Amino acid sequence: MSGPKKKSEGRANQYAYPGLDRVIHERARLSVLTSLARYPKGLRFGDLKELCGLTDGNLSRHMQVLQEAGFVEVEKSFEHNRPQTTCRLTPEGTRRYVEYLAVLEQVIRDAATAVKEGRGRVANVKP
Amino acid sequence: MSGPKKKSEGRANQYAYPGLDRVIHERARLSVLTSLARYPKGLRFGDLKELCGLTDGNLSRHMQVLQEAGFVEVEKSFEHNRPQTTCRLTPEGTRRYVEYLAVLEQVIRDAATAVKEGRGRVANVKP
Repeated sequence: MSGPKKKSEGRANQYAYPGLDRVIHERARLSVLTSLARYPKGLRFGDLKELCGLTDGNLSRHMQVLQEAGFVEVEKSFEHNRPQTTCRLTPEGTRRYVEYLAVLEQVIRDAATAVKEGRGRVANVKP
Repeated sequence: MSGPKKKSEGRANQYAYPGLDRVIHERARLSVLTSLARYPKGLRFGDLKELCGLTDGNLSRHMQVLQEAGFVEVEKSFEHNRPQTTCRLTPEGTRRYVEYLAVLEQVIRDAATAVKEGRGRVANVKP
């Protein structure tokens, strides 16, 4: 077994990532936010559903979580006499999504280092 | 409202990311796997807990999910007459973790493009 030899070798909470906000990190919600970031003026519910590969029920449920967090807003209107639901990011949602992405980039960097250094450790082990 | 004008403009499932395996993507488990990738010969339960900033109960619960998926293994032994639990990645776990990272990198690329193109769309809107 390897692992940190001294308390100081492995930093406490080194891989804890509190910045990976669970509201955003959940896979379906990450899809929703990425889609809405791409179309900041808003997406029809049906188009959003398609981009994310979600069912009506699933998208509704995740939109509710995101609305409660203040990250998205929903507008009901009529288009050619048919009810239309438009979903879009709020300024707060945009800000938090961009912050989240910075943490995700850190995870990728840490992971790349972990895999590289981990492989180095295995290679250095004497049989 | 903007959004895909035609069916063909926004690809169906463009942002669905089925490769973001929920077993790995969950924040605490992502921490556990990144820690174990860094120390492929194994980590003591206590050291792993510290690197991930998790409680005993939380780490146990997530280790169980990862064990059931075949991604990690746990070895019980004695060290200086005291019971010791060592956690490590399995070859399958390493493989799936590396695959997951490739999808995560795609998410980052898509997100960067989404934010950039989204901002471009807003900037191009006539008042």
